[in-house]
Amino acid sequence: MSDDGLLAPGWTGSPAAAATSDAAYLRALLDAEAALTRAQAALGLAPAEAAVAVTEAADPARFDVHALAERARAGGNPVIPLVADLTAAVGAEYGPYVHRGATSQDILDTAAMLVAARTLDLVLADLDRTAHALAGLAAVHRDTVMPGRTLTQHAVPTTFGLKAAGWRALVLDARDRVASVRDSLPAQLGGAAGTLAAFTVYGAGDVSSLPGVFAVEVGLREPELPWHVLRTPVADLAGALAFTAGALGKVAVDVLTLARTEVGEVAEGSGGGSSAMPHKANPVRSTLISAAARRAPQLAATLYGALVAEDERPAGAWHAEWEPLRDLLRLVGGAARDAVQLVEGLRVLGEVMRSHLGLTHGLIMSERLAAELAVVLGRGRAKELLSSLARRTYAEGRSLVELLSDEAELKGLDLSDLADPVRYTGLAGVLTDRALERR
Amino acid sequence: MSDDGLLAPGWTGSPAAAATSDAAYLRALLDAEAALTRAQAALGLAPAEAAVAVTEAADPARFDVHALAERARAGGNPVIPLVADLTAAVGAEYGPYVHRGATSQDILDTAAMLVAARTLDLVLADLDRTAHALAGLAAVHRDTVMPGRTLTQHAVPTTFGLKAAGWRALVLDARDRVASVRDSLPAQLGGAAGTLAAFTVYGAGDVSSLPGVFAVEVGLREPELPWHVLRTPVADLAGALAFTAGALGKVAVDVLTLARTEVGEVAEGSGGGSSAMPHKANPVRSTLISAAARRAPQLAATLYGALVAEDERPAGAWHAEWEPLRDLLRLVGGAARDAVQLVEGLRVLGEVMRSHLGLTHGLIMSERLAAELAVVLGRGRAKELLSSLARRTYAEGRSLVELLSDEAELKGLDLSDLADPVRYTGLAGVLTDRALERR
Amino acid sequence: MSDDGLLAPGWTGSPAAAATSDAAYLRALLDAEAALTRAQAALGLAPAEAAVAVTEAADPARFDVHALAERARAGGNPVIPLVADLTAAVGAEYGPYVHRGATSQDILDTAAMLVAARTLDLVLADLDRTAHALAGLAAVHRDTVMPGRTLTQHAVPTTFGLKAAGWRALVLDARDRVASVRDSLPAQLGGAAGTLAAFTVYGAGDVSSLPGVFAVEVGLREPELPWHVLRTPVADLAGALAFTAGALGKVAVDVLTLARTEVGEVAEGSGGGSSAMPHKANPVRSTLISAAARRAPQLAATLYGALVAEDERPAGAWHAEWEPLRDLLRLVGGAARDAVQLVEGLRVLGEVMRSHLGLTHGLIMSERLAAELAVVLGRGRAKELLSSLARRTYAEGRSLVELLSDEAELKGLDLSDLADPVRYTGLAGVLTDRALERR
Amino acid sequence: MSDDGLLAPGWTGSPAAAATSDAAYLRALLDAEAALTRAQAALGLAPAEAAVAVTEAADPARFDVHALAERARAGGNPVIPLVADLTAAVGAEYGPYVHRGATSQDILDTAAMLVAARTLDLVLADLDRTAHALAGLAAVHRDTVMPGRTLTQHAVPTTFGLKAAGWRALVLDARDRVASVRDSLPAQLGGAAGTLAAFTVYGAGDVSSLPGVFAVEVGLREPELPWHVLRTPVADLAGALAFTAGALGKVAVDVLTLARTEVGEVAEGSGGGSSAMPHKANPVRSTLISAAARRAPQLAATLYGALVAEDERPAGAWHAEWEPLRDLLRLVGGAARDAVQLVEGLRVLGEVMRSHLGLTHGLIMSERLAAELAVVLGRGRAKELLSSLARRTYAEGRSLVELLSDEAELKGLDLSDLADPVRYTGLAGVLTDRALERR
Repeated sequence: MSDDGLLAPGWTGSPAAAATSDAAYLRALLDAEAALTRAQAALGLAPAEAAVAVTEAADPARFDVHALAERARAGGNPVIPLVADLTAAVGAEYGPYVHRGATSQDILDTAAMLVAARTLDLVLADLDRTAHALAGLAAVHRDTVMPGRTLTQHAVPTTFGLKAAGWRALVLDARDRVASVRDSLPAQLGGAAGTLAAFTVYGAGDVSSLPGVFAVEVGLREPELPWHVLRTPVADLAGALAFTAGALGKVAVDVLTLARTEVGEVAEGSGGGSSAMPHKANPVRSTLISAAARRAPQLAATLYGALVAEDERPAGAWHAEWEPLRDLLRLVGGAARDAVQLVEGLRVLGEVMRSHLGLTHGLIMSERLAAELAVVLGRGRAKELLSSLARRTYAEGRSLVELLSDEAELKGLDLSDLADPVRYTGLAGVLTDRALERR
Repeated sequence: MSDDGLLAPGWTGSPAAAATSDAAYLRALLDAEAALTRAQAALGLAPAEAAVAVTEAADPARFDVHALAERARAGGNPVIPLVADLTAAVGAEYGPYVHRGATSQDILDTAAMLVAARTLDLVLADLDRTAHALAGLAAVHRDTVMPGRTLTQHAVPTTFGLKAAGWRALVLDARDRVASVRDSLPAQLGGAAGTLAAFTVYGAGDVSSLPGVFAVEVGLREPELPWHVLRTPVADLAGALAFTAGALGKVAVDVLTLARTEVGEVAEGSGGGSSAMPHKANPVRSTLISAAARRAPQLAATLYGALVAEDERPAGAWHAEWEPLRDLLRLVGGAARDAVQLVEGLRVLGEVMRSHLGLTHGLIMSERLAAELAVVLGRGRAKELLSSLARRTYAEGRSLVELLSDEAELKGLDLSDLADPVRYTGLAGVLTDRALERR
Repeated sequence: MSDDGLLAPGWTGSPAAAATSDAAYLRALLDAEAALTRAQAALGLAPAEAAVAVTEAADPARFDVHALAERARAGGNPVIPLVADLTAAVGAEYGPYVHRGATSQDILDTAAMLVAARTLDLVLADLDRTAHALAGLAAVHRDTVMPGRTLTQHAVPTTFGLKAAGWRALVLDARDRVASVRDSLPAQLGGAAGTLAAFTVYGAGDVSSLPGVFAVEVGLREPELPWHVLRTPVADLAGALAFTAGALGKVAVDVLTLARTEVGEVAEGSGGGSSAMPHKANPVRSTLISAAARRAPQLAATLYGALVAEDERPAGAWHAEWEPLRDLLRLVGGAARDAVQLVEGLRVLGEVMRSHLGLTHGLIMSERLAAELAVVLGRGRAKELLSSLARRTYAEGRSLVELLSDEAELKGLDLSDLADPVRYTGLAGVLTDRALERR
Repeated sequence: MSDDGLLAPGWTGSPAAAATSDAAYLRALLDAEAALTRAQAALGLAPAEAAVAVTEAADPARFDVHALAERARAGGNPVIPLVADLTAAVGAEYGPYVHRGATSQDILDTAAMLVAARTLDLVLADLDRTAHALAGLAAVHRDTVMPGRTLTQHAVPTTFGLKAAGWRALVLDARDRVASVRDSLPAQLGGAAGTLAAFTVYGAGDVSSLPGVFAVEVGLREPELPWHVLRTPVADLAGALAFTAGALGKVAVDVLTLARTEVGEVAEGSGGGSSAMPHKANPVRSTLISAAARRAPQLAATLYGALVAEDERPAGAWHAEWEPLRDLLRLVGGAARDAVQLVEGLRVLGEVMRSHLGLTHGLIMSERLAAELAVVLGRGRAKELLSSLARRTYAEGRSLVELLSDEAELKGLDLSDLADPVRYTGLAGVLTDRALERR
């Protein structure tokens, strides 16, 4: 049994896929074990030679992931067989210093945080690239007018610049949340039940500084307390990752909408082919991001649910975290990669957008006209008139301006100006500029 | 990137793991392609030699899963590169008959149903074994009295036989739901947009019988309609699998509760070890089943969500199904394997159960005593007396029967009989017998 | 605190809203209590007068829902204060026969099943009406050709008839699942810990027939076993309701897509207004159905999760069911009402659909042309030619047929026939006819 | 149809219930409308008298929630009928200034944030009280030794102080996340499609400062951009609330575990009664918190899913937020109330905890003994000896220390000291002290 991502075009082949593979977890588990022995050596709880020996032996190439996975079944976690193999690899003299004083969860939690840290670094880079490309789109299209759409219908004009600036704001929100969680990821060290008791048996050193030294060795934060059953770090990851998937999903769903054959206001840089139809150029990147965004919230829910972890180590809640956390990291890592490609390659067809402003026979300007006509006719009559003319535009195939021109009371108004969508974008430009100031 | 289940002791190494691996999907995809050409040949839409050629070429050993996975990224699904490779493998003459008239989704959906069918057969066998073992436990312990517990507190007596019979009833409910879904799993054949139009171009045969012939060739049901966007089969799988995970999860949570150090009424046959504590015998099978049960509902939610699939093929909803469906099959397959081992090996300590009947100083009989005393004292006074004595039992360390014996009005009652938990199991035995009649 | 559905336009005012209100639950709780006393009387476990007295007293108008709700807090469920009030209402003589031998869960579970049964009857009627209207649409539009769309892009032609027939198939799948669950809904009767022990104290009657008699009295099925912690009925409801929400959600998302301003192939009968724009006619029914479909899967997940119910009554899993089950019933009840209105009022614009067949410059026929050209040019060259011409159509603004006419080798083909979308609907008609045979 | 919380003992009657009722939403909707007119007046976009008139008319007592709820159905949101009623209430002169330039979503989103802010203030106060009570428990029980439990089995000793300190750390984590979100809650103002265009029609004032002035008037933050489809605030609420539910759920599940009849190390201050058993004192507060924790993650998932909001206002994603957001606020508000009562009333039975240290015949000290014996016997032999003796303790009913005393090689060790659980709590005290320093 060995999976290569055949069902996962959304993340296969991505840097995040490599950073979350079984091999990456194995490396992180070994990193954690080696750091633990080094930390003990630094505090005089183990000889310096043991630290060297364990660090050298902790070479992923010497371990068989497949066999470890099978042997993990007996005790319910992969650290138990890994400790056996690592102890053997270190040899008789320093073997006893492997994993000394620790519990499996110390190692597995620390490894999960290492994997998360390494993956989030990739995600952050891709979110930054995505935001950068979106800033470019927003600036270039600051004044590209297009239909604003609400509940699927043309509402009033907006600009593509404002839309892109909004996408960027969400991506930056995601980046900020991911960056904040990434910086907070802690090492785990508590021993059998979170009291670090075993370490106190092994020497006169100041055991209370061990978690901090271990955290430095392994490159993570020192936690306030052992968090075997205080799962804040995992829940925070869940939230930041679900948020990121959703933020990218918003970009994707807009692209999917605007790329529809009938809309055609944007197109992916390189569409995906079809096994049946030679002409197809499918919005594949948006499709895959969208698929990730459909899955992430429920994976996050499982992780939030795992906060309810009884005792000093729960029988199931902890085990239920492992795969969903990895799945979330992968999905978001893959989606971030796809987002870069999506926005960097996005083709924006400004003329099509502009031409669509006329699709409603001028009704896209009804809000403005209602306001302007209210001055002349009063609010009630203005609304009434517009509602009745709205029906006539479609029935008679005439534009709203034409129909309004027939109304004697409105002769004084420059209707073609008032009904020009390009002049009714409100603060779109100002808001875009303001949003682009954010770094 | 290649995963071997390092984070998945719950399903790694199980038959279901093999049945849902990338290799198993590859095999199923090739089975679908070969069956499609054979079906066309059977109807005169392709030469018989093409059917032979494609069937021979569709040998998983000739394909590189890893490369297919990477190439799936461009078009967003693995069928596109697979068709290219299979066409090349078949050669110039019959290559054109590969995948002819089909769309990627025809093949991927059919393959997913094949994988589901093959995995569910394994699940069904394990559910049957589990139910069989539970029937044995229920029969043997038909009259093993133990505390019934509600909201964590002793309530009234029950029997372990009734508990095991209840577990079995749930497992049989799961089996029935899984079996029903398994029997309904359909092949998929609709062509580019579900009209089967391309097939009509290729010959004068009766294309309307093609889906049925294809279904027979591939060993699945003929669907009422192409179901590219009518996802009943996937939703039904979601429901049956989430149900099964929950049913096994109920067994597991009861075992976890009864196996607690303070309770000790049951123990897993072979507990799991610890990396730190030589004495530990952890209930690992229940723990892993419990972890699966925490994850399955949210995976099912994602699949139910995918029912909302726009157009003739959705941009994301379909893609979001692939991994969660496999995850569910694996989790449930692994949990069913663990359930067999759990219940076949379960040690039931009847004496411990019986001894716990006395833990509440006799208060476990308060319901019965309230009823019996009501005859003598009236309902209100009986309840009052019992409530006040309940407080005294703990305070004075005396049993309820002792305290009641002090009450003059109750002299006529045979209190030791009325307060005997072993004689207050109601219909437990009858219900157990009745439940065991179900096959 | 009293809610009237201000945030719930999706279900407020619907029959399902009334059938699931607090008042409806109160009525069902009282129905359950009265049926229980009647059942005991029928078996000689209580005097016939008690049955009459309790049935008469169990009049919802005599109870204060608000006060019951507040008093439910102490014991964690509303049955405890209800029993107190009902006992008082019945009076001293027959009061002791109220709730005798039962546990709160017997009554609350039975009431929940009654509410479910009553709501599902409404849902079933609306699903039938929806299916009926869809059958009409499918029949009328059997040959209304429209673009088939995959991954948001025009693929090959299909018909609106086939689309409506597919919607109907899903709705019938929902109906079948709901009907099957509705017929299976059981009464609950187990007593304190599921052994029915207390009932055995109250008389010499055959207590083992009590659950069956109670089920008849209350109008539900007799369960195989007390199901306090065997939550099959709740999980089955979850599945059927999530399925129904998704099935209706599929209809809604298609309507939303086809009703977009740029597409305009369908319109809701009476669109919703806007607070700002006089011209807006929003697809409100589809929007609200779509909102329900986004929520149902996660509510169902909570209910599937509640299968993992420890002991003889769990501390939380049961309590977590109450509101989500009602929410699901309401959401689906509201969505079914909206679905009726949506499909009965749906305006289908066949000419718009037909006109859209030309939007891709003829590329919507590329699959067929690839097949036909392959006969003349070979499969490879045909595909190549079409791919290169596909690019030219857009660049040069010419149709695919025009460009193909330039190719000397293709002179013999009747291109305008081969490229006619109306003649390339494959089995759409046949499939529609076949699907409509289902009842 | 009017609900009073009959199915919701977890939150009915709580301050959060009142703060999230339909009446509270109505008030918040009116607050938003009034603030909008005042903000326009402040900028010269409306007369000051209009601001006064609207503010006065915006009195919840003048509106009929029930009727508004029913009328919300037509347009799919309650703001449309509310604006009609408010306009009428304001009268002809200033009526036109009601809701001028705004869209329904501006008002509904702002109201939702107001409701959230008001509810979170209540939640924060309860979290603070909970943390305060936990600090007291942790300090008092700093050295109360009890069994540490992993995977349901006794592992090594810990202290109740460390456990309570851990609970407090989680509650403080929740408080910090809730406080941070509460401070960030923004007003919403964008007009029909987020460009604020309509406001620019109504005067020469600087419309770009309107959102800021509105935010001040209504008492919320000014957002960076209109966030109609940039749902960061809702997703952040989802995360913080799901986190809080889980954090309180951890406390609850531990109480439920420790309060089991067989464990009895803690008890709720006032247990809940039973409808059947006079002696029952159920841990009701923990049960209801636990139920909330089972529901919150899936509600949060629905909200995270709503990030994927197409266009300038989505057809469903927005509507799907309303009830789940309220549900989350209520559930967490109710759980926080229950948590206060739970921890303030918690009875901790230190002697019972201590007595349980002996339940494993001394095996709870196996980790330490393994370490100490390793010095004398070597690591391998020490582990082997302990494993074999572990089996014998149970079989022979003798303590581990007794059995070890038989071993000649160990004569030099002070076994009764090494095997004293009270002396093997490691850094529990130090960690508790450190954790209590956090404010």
